[in-house]
Amino acid sequence: MKILTVSLTERSYPIYIGEGLLDQDQLLKEHIKSKEVLVVSNTTVAPLYLDRVLDNLQAYQCGSVILPDGEEFKTLEILNKVFDGLLGKKLSRQVTIIALGGGVIGDMAGFASACYQRGVPFIQIPTTLLSQVDSSVGGKTAVNHALGKNMIGAFYQPQCVIADTTTLNTLEDRQLASGLAEVIKYGLINDPDFFDWLVDNIAALQSRDQQVLAEAIERSCQNKANIVAEDELEKGVRALLNLGHTFGHAIETGMGYGQWLHGEAIAVGMMMAADLSQRLGWMTLQDVDKIKQLLLAANLPISAPKEMTSEQFMDLMSVDKKVQQGHIRLVLLKGIGKAVISDDYSTECLQATLQAFTA
Amino acid sequence: MKILTVSLTERSYPIYIGEGLLDQDQLLKEHIKSKEVLVVSNTTVAPLYLDRVLDNLQAYQCGSVILPDGEEFKTLEILNKVFDGLLGKKLSRQVTIIALGGGVIGDMAGFASACYQRGVPFIQIPTTLLSQVDSSVGGKTAVNHALGKNMIGAFYQPQCVIADTTTLNTLEDRQLASGLAEVIKYGLINDPDFFDWLVDNIAALQSRDQQVLAEAIERSCQNKANIVAEDELEKGVRALLNLGHTFGHAIETGMGYGQWLHGEAIAVGMMMAADLSQRLGWMTLQDVDKIKQLLLAANLPISAPKEMTSEQFMDLMSVDKKVQQGHIRLVLLKGIGKAVISDDYSTECLQATLQAFTA
Repeated sequence: MKILTVSLTERSYPIYIGEGLLDQDQLLKEHIKSKEVLVVSNTTVAPLYLDRVLDNLQAYQCGSVILPDGEEFKTLEILNKVFDGLLGKKLSRQVTIIALGGGVIGDMAGFASACYQRGVPFIQIPTTLLSQVDSSVGGKTAVNHALGKNMIGAFYQPQCVIADTTTLNTLEDRQLASGLAEVIKYGLINDPDFFDWLVDNIAALQSRDQQVLAEAIERSCQNKANIVAEDELEKGVRALLNLGHTFGHAIETGMGYGQWLHGEAIAVGMMMAADLSQRLGWMTLQDVDKIKQLLLAANLPISAPKEMTSEQFMDLMSVDKKVQQGHIRLVLLKGIGKAVISDDYSTECLQATLQAFTA
Repeated sequence: MKILTVSLTERSYPIYIGEGLLDQDQLLKEHIKSKEVLVVSNTTVAPLYLDRVLDNLQAYQCGSVILPDGEEFKTLEILNKVFDGLLGKKLSRQVTIIALGGGVIGDMAGFASACYQRGVPFIQIPTTLLSQVDSSVGGKTAVNHALGKNMIGAFYQPQCVIADTTTLNTLEDRQLASGLAEVIKYGLINDPDFFDWLVDNIAALQSRDQQVLAEAIERSCQNKANIVAEDELEKGVRALLNLGHTFGHAIETGMGYGQWLHGEAIAVGMMMAADLSQRLGWMTLQDVDKIKQLLLAANLPISAPKEMTSEQFMDLMSVDKKVQQGHIRLVLLKGIGKAVISDDYSTECLQATLQAFTA
């Protein structure tokens, strides 16, 4: 088992990564401070893993809330079902909420934990690659709004994260690929060695080699943890983690939540950021091609949905959170492993990129 | 103008109290950090004061959201209208949200500020006595759930509070009385001199003497600020502020939100806490009577609603936030100005109090 600590002074917490951690009940019990527990999961994950988690917690007063599966259900309305469950079972301010599922479940259970009685402890058991490498670090929780993704939320840290790599064996190929998009993102942002390692190991990752997966998860979480430790509330450098996200969120919102997986949209978003960076003369065509080849090898899309126009992109991007005083700030690349936050680009180049991807 | 500082290290903020502060535009501008502003108000207050606030902010990009008036609208569903307004106007993470109204508006606008894009600045302009003495201090924001009051919320501090005492001239008598219940509460908790001062000045307060009102608001806020500074997240002493609230919330929930005003329910709750304390031998009948006389002089109810049974009280009280591990902790009195948090009371005495108030 690998243990990695996310350092945030009194809000620091451990991430446990390894095979079969779901059955190590001590990990969970160590981080539950009262006898009250509510497990939040969804209709896909609960049949696979809920009983195993509850079996470990027989000495506790346990309840569970099973939400429908999918990004389109990440809304205030569905969030209220978690509060229904908490209040229906009269669970007090001492309850620990456990998120068992992917990123949507982590985001919703985390946000519910931040809000229930103004804050109760929570634990994440991410069961997708995407949530193991992304939502496990950083404490971003949220639900979507019809007019924008992740617009309603809180910064809220878990007590611990338990990433059992064997849960990835039940993941659909498309979901695995979606997770790989975020893994590749960490290489692109500031870890060129990791990018090269990914080029060498992409086949092993796709065949779900447990050791290679654990290493990819650890290096991804470490990369993210370093950035988050420096800037918990996203006042500066943390925005680098949004590489590909301003374009990607536009795709997710434009296509309707749940149509494109998050990682799929981010993959295209990273290609668009690379394309714009190349047009600005900041990176070479060869590097853009290396990114493209790795994304293709990971079974990820590299073209925007045919249905979207460049006007729609501009409109959706301008409501994204990265906007400051009406000006779109983007995460761009000065090479592989050299991401920068910048508004120092010409509108012509941005338009050219949008045209190229939507023509 | 009186200025009082709520001391919470980097989250400290000033409360301005005085006549005609709504027209002092500098107060507001000093605390708005960008050009984007959204004013949240309700159908009662907006016609009276919204234009005056907007007139002060002509140089800003201002929007407003007008919510229906009343505790029964303090829900997640209505909260979403604030997010609709923010996103419909494409307001960014730099927006400042201004709460213009009573406690419900302050709670909802504050919670929306805590959640919108995971946190944007907000300013409170409380226009009721209750909100000037209660919600202006302490950063508690929330919405209600069908199964419990204030169950979904956040601790979130404003940039400043502007309490214009002239706004109290448009307040209904019943609303003024509701505010006086919370004012009296501060005397009961730990300020016997203030309690005596209130006995002497209750007539002047009811006739809305501006000087006397300003003094009552300042002393109330100061009392609350002292307690909150000691215990921002309600791990201990802050729970004293819930004097009368466990009983009172049961009334509010039992009768349906909006039927009883908060202060009315709290007045009865304080009488019930005093009654139980007297049964326990902790305070004299004379003191209980002094409290009763002051509440009556303030035009507040002192008996529970006839519709409620003692069983209903027990059931509703057990879901209240003050429950720890299934045991009801109450704020009780060891005399006027000597509140204590305790679970050291006999169930028989509690039952006797519930019987006495519901018979």
